[in-house]
Amino acid sequence: MARATLDLETHTSRLEAAIESIWFRNLITALIILNAIVLGVLTYQEDLPPALVVSLNGIDRAITYIFAVEIFLKLVVYRLLFFRSGWNWFDFIVVGISLAPGSEAFSVLRALRVLRVLRLLHVVPMMKRITEALLKALPGMGAIVAVLALLIYVYAVMATNMYGNTDNEEVLELFGDLPSSAFSLFQVMTMDGWRFEVVQKVIDDGHPWAWLFFITFIFIASFAVLNLFIALVVEALAAEQRAATDELLEDIEEDVEHAEEERDEMLKLLTSLREEVAGLRADIHQTGGSGKSRE
Amino acid sequence: MARATLDLETHTSRLEAAIESIWFRNLITALIILNAIVLGVLTYQEDLPPALVVSLNGIDRAITYIFAVEIFLKLVVYRLLFFRSGWNWFDFIVVGISLAPGSEAFSVLRALRVLRVLRLLHVVPMMKRITEALLKALPGMGAIVAVLALLIYVYAVMATNMYGNTDNEEVLELFGDLPSSAFSLFQVMTMDGWRFEVVQKVIDDGHPWAWLFFITFIFIASFAVLNLFIALVVEALAAEQRAATDELLEDIEEDVEHAEEERDEMLKLLTSLREEVAGLRADIHQTGGSGKSRE
Amino acid sequence: MARATLDLETHTSRLEAAIESIWFRNLITALIILNAIVLGVLTYQEDLPPALVVSLNGIDRAITYIFAVEIFLKLVVYRLLFFRSGWNWFDFIVVGISLAPGSEAFSVLRALRVLRVLRLLHVVPMMKRITEALLKALPGMGAIVAVLALLIYVYAVMATNMYGNTDNEEVLELFGDLPSSAFSLFQVMTMDGWRFEVVQKVIDDGHPWAWLFFITFIFIASFAVLNLFIALVVEALAAEQRAATDELLEDIEEDVEHAEEERDEMLKLLTSLREEVAGLRADIHQTGGSGKSRE
Amino acid sequence: MARATLDLETHTSRLEAAIESIWFRNLITALIILNAIVLGVLTYQEDLPPALVVSLNGIDRAITYIFAVEIFLKLVVYRLLFFRSGWNWFDFIVVGISLAPGSEAFSVLRALRVLRVLRLLHVVPMMKRITEALLKALPGMGAIVAVLALLIYVYAVMATNMYGNTDNEEVLELFGDLPSSAFSLFQVMTMDGWRFEVVQKVIDDGHPWAWLFFITFIFIASFAVLNLFIALVVEALAAEQRAATDELLEDIEEDVEHAEEERDEMLKLLTSLREEVAGLRADIHQTGGSGKSRE
Repeated sequence: MARATLDLETHTSRLEAAIESIWFRNLITALIILNAIVLGVLTYQEDLPPALVVSLNGIDRAITYIFAVEIFLKLVVYRLLFFRSGWNWFDFIVVGISLAPGSEAFSVLRALRVLRVLRLLHVVPMMKRITEALLKALPGMGAIVAVLALLIYVYAVMATNMYGNTDNEEVLELFGDLPSSAFSLFQVMTMDGWRFEVVQKVIDDGHPWAWLFFITFIFIASFAVLNLFIALVVEALAAEQRAATDELLEDIEEDVEHAEEERDEMLKLLTSLREEVAGLRADIHQTGGSGKSRE
Repeated sequence: MARATLDLETHTSRLEAAIESIWFRNLITALIILNAIVLGVLTYQEDLPPALVVSLNGIDRAITYIFAVEIFLKLVVYRLLFFRSGWNWFDFIVVGISLAPGSEAFSVLRALRVLRVLRLLHVVPMMKRITEALLKALPGMGAIVAVLALLIYVYAVMATNMYGNTDNEEVLELFGDLPSSAFSLFQVMTMDGWRFEVVQKVIDDGHPWAWLFFITFIFIASFAVLNLFIALVVEALAAEQRAATDELLEDIEEDVEHAEEERDEMLKLLTSLREEVAGLRADIHQTGGSGKSRE
Repeated sequence: MARATLDLETHTSRLEAAIESIWFRNLITALIILNAIVLGVLTYQEDLPPALVVSLNGIDRAITYIFAVEIFLKLVVYRLLFFRSGWNWFDFIVVGISLAPGSEAFSVLRALRVLRVLRLLHVVPMMKRITEALLKALPGMGAIVAVLALLIYVYAVMATNMYGNTDNEEVLELFGDLPSSAFSLFQVMTMDGWRFEVVQKVIDDGHPWAWLFFITFIFIASFAVLNLFIALVVEALAAEQRAATDELLEDIEEDVEHAEEERDEMLKLLTSLREEVAGLRADIHQTGGSGKSRE
Repeated sequence: MARATLDLETHTSRLEAAIESIWFRNLITALIILNAIVLGVLTYQEDLPPALVVSLNGIDRAITYIFAVEIFLKLVVYRLLFFRSGWNWFDFIVVGISLAPGSEAFSVLRALRVLRVLRLLHVVPMMKRITEALLKALPGMGAIVAVLALLIYVYAVMATNMYGNTDNEEVLELFGDLPSSAFSLFQVMTMDGWRFEVVQKVIDDGHPWAWLFFITFIFIASFAVLNLFIALVVEALAAEQRAATDELLEDIEEDVEHAEEERDEMLKLLTSLREEVAGLRADIHQTGGSGKSRE
């Protein structure tokens, strides 16, 4: 029984070494790229000979199974630690979607197959570095995105109330209900066709003062976005800078400490010297009798 | 009489503690969010059963009254100090709008009810921090916004004079009067459909050199906006930096002061030592008779 | 004769004091703003009673003459020094345009009257500061703007050659000749309607690979613009920083110099002390006879 | 034979001096500008008298031959070193295109003649500095551009699968095949007409949830682009800063070293002084007999 456990452990550690090896990662990388190409070619499936489509689908399925085995092996090796990594969750879900029953039937689920290609984002080290840098910047944006969302919500409620009661089809499409209004305001925020596709239509629908409503929104929203952006730049720079300043500080600290040591040594020397001289003076007094002491 | 005053004061301070407590803030936050949802659902009022609309409007009215009571309590506690805070003014106005007589009648005033939801901006601490950071950056933009406004005004007068005397409906809509021209130039500044929605129409209306007019405007305006932006980034960064530099300076200052103290001590030691040695020498001279003094 | 010169000089310096006084600047500021309003109202001249138009034009003319007198007085006071200031040149040209013979006849010249309002940019100190900051940033952009202009020229020649030989009216408008092509490429660079207003039309005109041409242009141009922007930010920040660093350096320099002075004093003290002790030793040797000297 | 080699070498070095001289560079610059003008005028060739077109084409051909000779001379002087410089490769290819057989026949190749004008980018020193700064920033963008490309690919496969099976001509143009989808997504990323030219058409084609697909894409893509941008700014600033910090550090380092030297001197002085005093004491003991020594 102990033997078996030992064997298992040996197997497991060998398995771990294999999974973490470079050739294994390169193999997975190659499979992902092959998968990407296969899925790309499959978008032309209507113009391709049926036999080719079948074999391409077969390759795709095979690669999915290989990925599933990869995840299974990782589960065997790392057990519950496996779920500590966000990337492992990502792989698990993305491969799971393709294996879900009925995933062939629903076009949306079939379309999601290609998400597997995003595994490249953490399998290729260079991309992983970028992706994690992007993810790290996310939380810092939370508060401003919340403010922006609140702003869009409030403006959307107002716009729906003020402009949504109309028979004009175009304005109804823009501000007929709350989600449409929010979407239209998001469009205005991106400044894409905001005047003639949105604002002018509302003005022409009998709201001559609508420009004021939208101009204030543009100002507030783009100002908030601008500040979101500035906050991110300043944050990134301050981090960079803090590193540089810390380094500088450390260097100076070291020098200062060294100087202090030396000064301490000097002080010690001086004190001992003073005692020595004092002792000397006492000696002389003893030796030479009662000399008048100056001062 | 004194008793009554004391009682009042005790009541007031208890009231203040209640108003400033976390559970009160959480209650208000919950009410604002509930209000936001109610007002959102009310945008669908035409598709809802009338009874539901009535009760939702009742909830909205009840929440408004609660907010009014909240403001009244704050007025009781803080009296005139209440109006020192911009946020209190904001609450006062935003709740006041909903209570104004006739606010049910005018669709604009009814639409403004949702502004109450913006109270979240200062009731939720995380959002308050962001909002106040945004507001703090506002004054720094004043001068550049003034320059931009002047620029748009001058260009709008010119555009109205040059392009407004036409029978072309589209160009009239764009540059028929001063406000339209200013609005169109604002559109050009945001670079939304500037060519085919604005400039090309003017060119085709018999002004072949109009592109020169608009290109100079685009250059000047976007350059000014760019600098506005740079000024804000630099300002924010410089503030951040100044903090870091100040910290660094303080650390160095401290070290330097410490070093100076130690050097002062050394100097004192050295001076006293010198005196001691001089005194010693004098002693010896006295003791040992007329030795030739060197130098 | 000398009397007259003296008188003239006295008059001149009094005149200078008047011109540079705050009330004079405020008067000019008020006149410019009045002028701005008058010119704004005059854009509605077709809807105004003719008598009002006549009197508004009279006010405009009167203000122009006052500005002309102002410039004349400055010329009297500063003579050729007047032309040292770019702002004076600006005033001179802008007022001159309105006084030019025939300026009433040509609608363009009449439209340019409003440029006088831009005098605010240097008469109001707050605006002057901003404007001069903007102008100072201009030269730094020279090289990148030159590169961008060259890029647009080269792409415009290529686009005209490749896409201009067509019967498609829309494509002819876009790329029919060199200036049109440059204008269209500028539009693509601002990313305004680049796809369906420009690129797709060329593709549909029988150039299926046109997207490659425009995508490379977008990448290169927006990358260059991005770098232009970054250069400006970095430049502005580095200037700001250099100031902070210099201040820090000066503080440290001062401390270091002070420390050096104190160390020099210590060294002097130590040296004199050593001499004293050496003298003392010699004294003792003389006094106390031939003691063995250690080492 | 040796004579000939020597001659050749002398000729070569003379040739090198000529090629690298300022007048030669100015000549080439003038020729490039002349070439730019000629090619610009030639875009009007259909409206020009045939004789002028012939002579302009002659000038263009002549300049091309001069450039070819220039490259040949450089090849003679620098031999294989010639190909070490990227700019030389650029010249070689750009001139080669114009000399390629059949370059007169194909309109694309003829259009590419104007690329020769881009030689200005490295012949004019001011432009060379800018261009090389731009090129230096390129590699830093590699990883993020790769991430963006992967993102567009994955979204394009999904969009083609989900929205491409339709009879709606407009949607087919947008998402009918993989390259179209990628192009449309690139359009969405630039935020040009993303709503009504792209997203709304897909929604109206029976995909009411398409907005979710595109909003996530806009968020991810613009967030990635934003970070690309921030990375570049931070990189540029950090480089600038590191220079400033290094300078500061060097100055401090120097001061610190000087202080250390002086402290070392002091310590040496103190130590020798101590020895002197100790020696003195010993002398006195010897001289003055058995005085009690104070600890």
